[in-house]
Amino acid sequence: MENLKALVLNCSLKKSDELSNTDALLKDFIKIFDSKHIKSEVIRVVDYNVAYGIADDMGDGDEWPKILEKVKQADILILASPVWLGEKSSVSKKVLERLNGSSSETNEKGQPIFYNKVAGAVVTGNEDGAKHAAGDLIFGLAQLGFAIPPNPIAYWVGEAGPGPSYIEAEGYKSEFTQSTIETASHNLVHLAKIFQEHPIPAEGNVSE
Amino acid sequence: MENLKALVLNCSLKKSDELSNTDALLKDFIKIFDSKHIKSEVIRVVDYNVAYGIADDMGDGDEWPKILEKVKQADILILASPVWLGEKSSVSKKVLERLNGSSSETNEKGQPIFYNKVAGAVVTGNEDGAKHAAGDLIFGLAQLGFAIPPNPIAYWVGEAGPGPSYIEAEGYKSEFTQSTIETASHNLVHLAKIFQEHPIPAEGNVSE
Amino acid sequence: MENLKALVLNCSLKKSDELSNTDALLKDFIKIFDSKHIKSEVIRVVDYNVAYGIADDMGDGDEWPKILEKVKQADILILASPVWLGEKSSVSKKVLERLNGSSSETNEKGQPIFYNKVAGAVVTGNEDGAKHAAGDLIFGLAQLGFAIPPNPIAYWVGEAGPGPSYIEAEGYKSEFTQSTIETASHNLVHLAKIFQEHPIPAEGNVSE
Amino acid sequence: MENLKALVLNCSLKKSDELSNTDALLKDFIKIFDSKHIKSEVIRVVDYNVAYGIADDMGDGDEWPKILEKVKQADILILASPVWLGEKSSVSKKVLERLNGSSSETNEKGQPIFYNKVAGAVVTGNEDGAKHAAGDLIFGLAQLGFAIPPNPIAYWVGEAGPGPSYIEAEGYKSEFTQSTIETASHNLVHLAKIFQEHPIPAEGNVSE
Repeated sequence: MENLKALVLNCSLKKSDELSNTDALLKDFIKIFDSKHIKSEVIRVVDYNVAYGIADDMGDGDEWPKILEKVKQADILILASPVWLGEKSSVSKKVLERLNGSSSETNEKGQPIFYNKVAGAVVTGNEDGAKHAAGDLIFGLAQLGFAIPPNPIAYWVGEAGPGPSYIEAEGYKSEFTQSTIETASHNLVHLAKIFQEHPIPAEGNVSE
Repeated sequence: MENLKALVLNCSLKKSDELSNTDALLKDFIKIFDSKHIKSEVIRVVDYNVAYGIADDMGDGDEWPKILEKVKQADILILASPVWLGEKSSVSKKVLERLNGSSSETNEKGQPIFYNKVAGAVVTGNEDGAKHAAGDLIFGLAQLGFAIPPNPIAYWVGEAGPGPSYIEAEGYKSEFTQSTIETASHNLVHLAKIFQEHPIPAEGNVSE
Repeated sequence: MENLKALVLNCSLKKSDELSNTDALLKDFIKIFDSKHIKSEVIRVVDYNVAYGIADDMGDGDEWPKILEKVKQADILILASPVWLGEKSSVSKKVLERLNGSSSETNEKGQPIFYNKVAGAVVTGNEDGAKHAAGDLIFGLAQLGFAIPPNPIAYWVGEAGPGPSYIEAEGYKSEFTQSTIETASHNLVHLAKIFQEHPIPAEGNVSE
Repeated sequence: MENLKALVLNCSLKKSDELSNTDALLKDFIKIFDSKHIKSEVIRVVDYNVAYGIADDMGDGDEWPKILEKVKQADILILASPVWLGEKSSVSKKVLERLNGSSSETNEKGQPIFYNKVAGAVVTGNEDGAKHAAGDLIFGLAQLGFAIPPNPIAYWVGEAGPGPSYIEAEGYKSEFTQSTIETASHNLVHLAKIFQEHPIPAEGNVSE
């Protein structure tokens, strides 16, 4: 059995020279992948020059193709987003738009290329909005052809109102958040392993 | 100047013989209405036999017409909802559906009957989901013809995960929640008072 | 291999003595299940006296337990909803709330009882709102423990504005809608069959 | 009475050297503003180098301050967005994030700077998603301090599935879409005029 690969796109508004609360939560996520011998890579999307548009390559220095190539290689995709105004980040929506640009591309069986990949979401915010953010991400990914395991999200948010975010609030001490990390990471791996040996048959889902 | 009336529809899943966390937050809201001499009434919607459907009266013992009559008399409407699965309650969606049943009814100027009424939302939950719930309510009300003042919502939710709700968590001690109550209640009254003397003209918004 | 069972909960606001546009679309869905020897049952939820609340049985003539029993027997669950005000129906939200009441119940391995079941959504409306409705349903189901196959929804809506619904508009003639029916029904069956022989292992997802 | 100004931020993914369907709908919107002597300006946001982040000026060539200055001068703000994957564009979310960066700035009375401005939304897509997109925009704007008139949105989308967009589909022939343009534009002007003479009093909404 080939090794599974996980790709995490951190859709923070901040480049990787700044601390990301979402990254902090992702570290615990990745630990579980490590323990299960899943190779993983975390990318801060805003480190790349990703163009606006709906195409696999928008030209003019567009660096999305580099990220897309990693998505194609991955068995597990996680979109991670901070919460702003109770919603997912603009960066994460741009990622969905760019993935959409490849939704008519097919694999060797004629299925959309994201078939037999599994997806989940990770969200952190200082308050309210994790499920709204995660729900939009999960549904976008399902529409694009990813499969979604049970309990596919891990998140932390604080009490209503301004306040410290994950790192400062020591969100990692939340038993609940740890349990969402544990469940989501395991279920992503479980489903990816199942698909590795038993992929979704090319019947009823093949473009003509 | 006639006295203004506010109607609050508490869309809790629990009848009024059970304690509602949303009601607890509403009490502070109403206090501000009282201080400004706004007559207010809070109704627990599930105390009434409200039918499913899109019509002002579904017959067969449907008690929605009693509530609708109060909405028609009100200058200010507040939809209050608990959070379940990160979203507004099914009861609050039913209220929007029933209000929709009167959306083609017009006032004496030919505008939809909810014109020149103002609306807001109040949400409580033990965790995450207040803005998602409030946003759906606010937008539904705006589509139906209500006007929305700035900062039209008051809410409290706790940290991610299962935990105590508003009353037990002493959410009323949250300065942030108190500030949302203060601002939303004042702005609802301000806009209702402005409309009382300066209603939206019947131009461009009149059915033919 | 045991035969698979599919349960469709039609969350129309209308009882089954009235024509449901959503039912019309569901007929084509079921045809594909029939062709694949999947036993299926369509239930109009409002035919039952389903109480408000978050518990598996609210007592007092609550008929949810009858529906819940069917959900427990099913391998595939489809929530079907009309669109009102651009959103899923209040009935469909009530179904999510009631399913939530069983989310801490576990199977013999200690996983939530909806594990190893797959879920999808079907939506019809005269205009705009299908994806918003479907997205909320899909994400609610994923949170509760259902697995979601790729392209898990089938839908039809007409052009913006009031207009005929599915039956009158002959939505069944839409090639696009037929392709969503084809893909969603096949993928639900594919994933259910995979789980039948290769269920999600009880590791990382077991309550203690 | 000073002349009113309207600013429209077209959040298309395409720069202004490409045809935007949303722009086509906006033209009819602007005609009504013209007829009421409202000065208006339409900006294609992606023509500007708008940085990611939550601050009024992110530095490093960030051109958001130019747009923000226009927002500050405007009495009416319209966010216009195409639909992608059933949701508003990533560009429109970025605009909300950047506006959020000024939400603690206050006017001379101590109210948030967006008070006494009114806001609406315009959406076009080839299919399904207009209300979901518009609802998120409207609620975001209300949270930031804009007031929302009744029926604050104008939109067009076609029947479910791929198909022509506004221009090619001759969406301008839709009586419904024209009526949403008529109503939204008039109500935005009505409310802006009311606020010009009767602004929201600085009571209960002033930062200390």
